[in-house]
Amino acid sequence: MARISFLSDANGDLRRIGSAIRERRKAIGLSQEALADAAGIDRAHAGKIERGERNVTILNILRIASALGCRPSDLLMDSGL
Amino acid sequence: MARISFLSDANGDLRRIGSAIRERRKAIGLSQEALADAAGIDRAHAGKIERGERNVTILNILRIASALGCRPSDLLMDSGL
Repeated sequence: MARISFLSDANGDLRRIGSAIRERRKAIGLSQEALADAAGIDRAHAGKIERGERNVTILNILRIASALGCRPSDLLMDSGL
Repeated sequence: MARISFLSDANGDLRRIGSAIRERRKAIGLSQEALADAAGIDRAHAGKIERGERNVTILNILRIASALGCRPSDLLMDSGL
């Protein structure tokens, strides 16, 4: 079975996804609070997602991508995943 | 703020992701149980993910993609997300 290296570093993967979200958010000039509100996610939770401190669910990835105006797959590709 | 249509149908999104997983699993001749074991996910939970009955976490998406030998972003792109 093929094993891909990203599996070995779950915390790093979560941090990379959070960084990808933060970079796109800043690129469109949105505050973390505004992104959380637009995505319908608790503000504290959104901060933890951006810092890679939460194992974010796929529906929250979809909500965040929608609020950022990008595709969910873009966020993963930005993260090298 | 740009709104993308997939947001309007969370259950449909989960079903599409589950179907993408099932299609890739079958394409490589893996049983659902073998995929669950390879991904380190409970077998019953893996079945619910394939049926779109669970809001799967991103780390489980990463584990499933690794077991399928594809990229996590491929699973989302297969799902049109």
